[in-house]
Amino acid sequence: MKLENLIQNIKQKQSFLCVGLDVDLEKIPAHLLEFEDPIFEFNKRIIDATKDYAVAYKPNIAFYECHGSKGWDALKKTVDYIPEDIFTIADAKRGDIGNTSHYYAKTFFEYLNFDAVTVAPYMGVDSVTPFLEYKDKWVILLALTSNKGALDFQFTTDIKGEQLFEKVVRKSSEWGDASKLMYVVGATRKESIEKVRAASPNHFFLVPGVGAQGGSLEDVANYGWNDNCGLLVNSSRGIIYAGQGVNFDKEVKLAAKNIQSEMAAILKSKHFI
Amino acid sequence: MKLENLIQNIKQKQSFLCVGLDVDLEKIPAHLLEFEDPIFEFNKRIIDATKDYAVAYKPNIAFYECHGSKGWDALKKTVDYIPEDIFTIADAKRGDIGNTSHYYAKTFFEYLNFDAVTVAPYMGVDSVTPFLEYKDKWVILLALTSNKGALDFQFTTDIKGEQLFEKVVRKSSEWGDASKLMYVVGATRKESIEKVRAASPNHFFLVPGVGAQGGSLEDVANYGWNDNCGLLVNSSRGIIYAGQGVNFDKEVKLAAKNIQSEMAAILKSKHFI
Repeated sequence: MKLENLIQNIKQKQSFLCVGLDVDLEKIPAHLLEFEDPIFEFNKRIIDATKDYAVAYKPNIAFYECHGSKGWDALKKTVDYIPEDIFTIADAKRGDIGNTSHYYAKTFFEYLNFDAVTVAPYMGVDSVTPFLEYKDKWVILLALTSNKGALDFQFTTDIKGEQLFEKVVRKSSEWGDASKLMYVVGATRKESIEKVRAASPNHFFLVPGVGAQGGSLEDVANYGWNDNCGLLVNSSRGIIYAGQGVNFDKEVKLAAKNIQSEMAAILKSKHFI
Repeated sequence: MKLENLIQNIKQKQSFLCVGLDVDLEKIPAHLLEFEDPIFEFNKRIIDATKDYAVAYKPNIAFYECHGSKGWDALKKTVDYIPEDIFTIADAKRGDIGNTSHYYAKTFFEYLNFDAVTVAPYMGVDSVTPFLEYKDKWVILLALTSNKGALDFQFTTDIKGEQLFEKVVRKSSEWGDASKLMYVVGATRKESIEKVRAASPNHFFLVPGVGAQGGSLEDVANYGWNDNCGLLVNSSRGIIYAGQGVNFDKEVKLAAKNIQSEMAAILKSKHFI
């Protein structure tokens, strides 16, 4: 997908919501377990219920590969089911030496036909560039994650006073511009969102950590906003497990609609729509 | 596998060789492509030819998942085929927030029953500990990789003069001791191998980069050695693509045997055997 299409979708749907498809068979409504492929059946209903409010879907690959080849089949069916005009993100956090990253890129961009894949930066330039070689495909590089362990290495300050996550953003923005590179920037540390925005004024951020993890949508919008909106805010558990029982999708729809309404208000307050 | 069994295998086979099963369908002998599962058929022959000389096998997951569910089936069959007394490493370089890493651990330690998995450190403690919770299973954490991109972030020096790869080793060695944690330390930078050894005297190193990438076995043994040998040296392309044609496995066997002989000489010179 091209950047202009993503921006157009945000304006049209009045939403910058990404729905995280992190399917846990222990949490989905019991009646779906009777189907041959409960993961896909769940996702199908989630997509049907939320597609008017979401501009992106993000399956986290861990939840699929723990079921082996069956999980991979469910993943493929899910991506194929997502309407073509919605941005798809493989939350895979891959990254390896160049030759190997090339095969990961093949997996997510050719075999599964995702628009984007999340990549870990530790191994540097040749672990990232094989993904950037694909036209109209995206790398979403981990910059500042929302978890506790982000404190271990990402805030390491070098002798020039630059923190590691800032260095990741500064260096990697030379590898890919805002038309094919985004950053993962957690919602849980608002001052740092501002720092990443200063270091990369043009790139989109994929923002986890709103809701269950404690980040606030207003903070994200205030500190992470750019002229193109520049934000995809992810919600997983808060939406996909909003309902139980046979009609769980009604509550799922409502949960997505509620976040979309908040987002519409923000987009209006920023005069973006 | 327990540490003492690994050490015992090294002594018994007079080898610290890990064979990397990075199967590329464009490089395997043509006659194998006629089988229903060429990846597994190739691996089967590689394992048969090298099992007397190798103490570990390491499939890199990228080469399997690019074939989707078929690739995952080939991977499972491969791991099941490896003799039980040989250490198995999923070279997956995974890492995610705690809840998600838990599912990756499930994949590699339960579904596929690997002994070890490689993990990327960027997301910190909660991305690594779910893997460490499994008894007699191992995390092999990226410390210093062998590729060009290692220079981008891994050598970042903080205000106390500590480089990022040293910090990764220092902090993570508090999360797991030498009975369940190893480090990836590339063979291409010998002075740095010495630094990692100083920071972690007891942990094993998984060493890529010998052979095709330019690292030397003697350097690795001189700078990375500890009282338990402390080294698993990986060779992928140099062994698995050593032969072509129907009898390719003869040359594969010879290539593995040659490295094993070099390793036996080193083990003797260190009075380990």
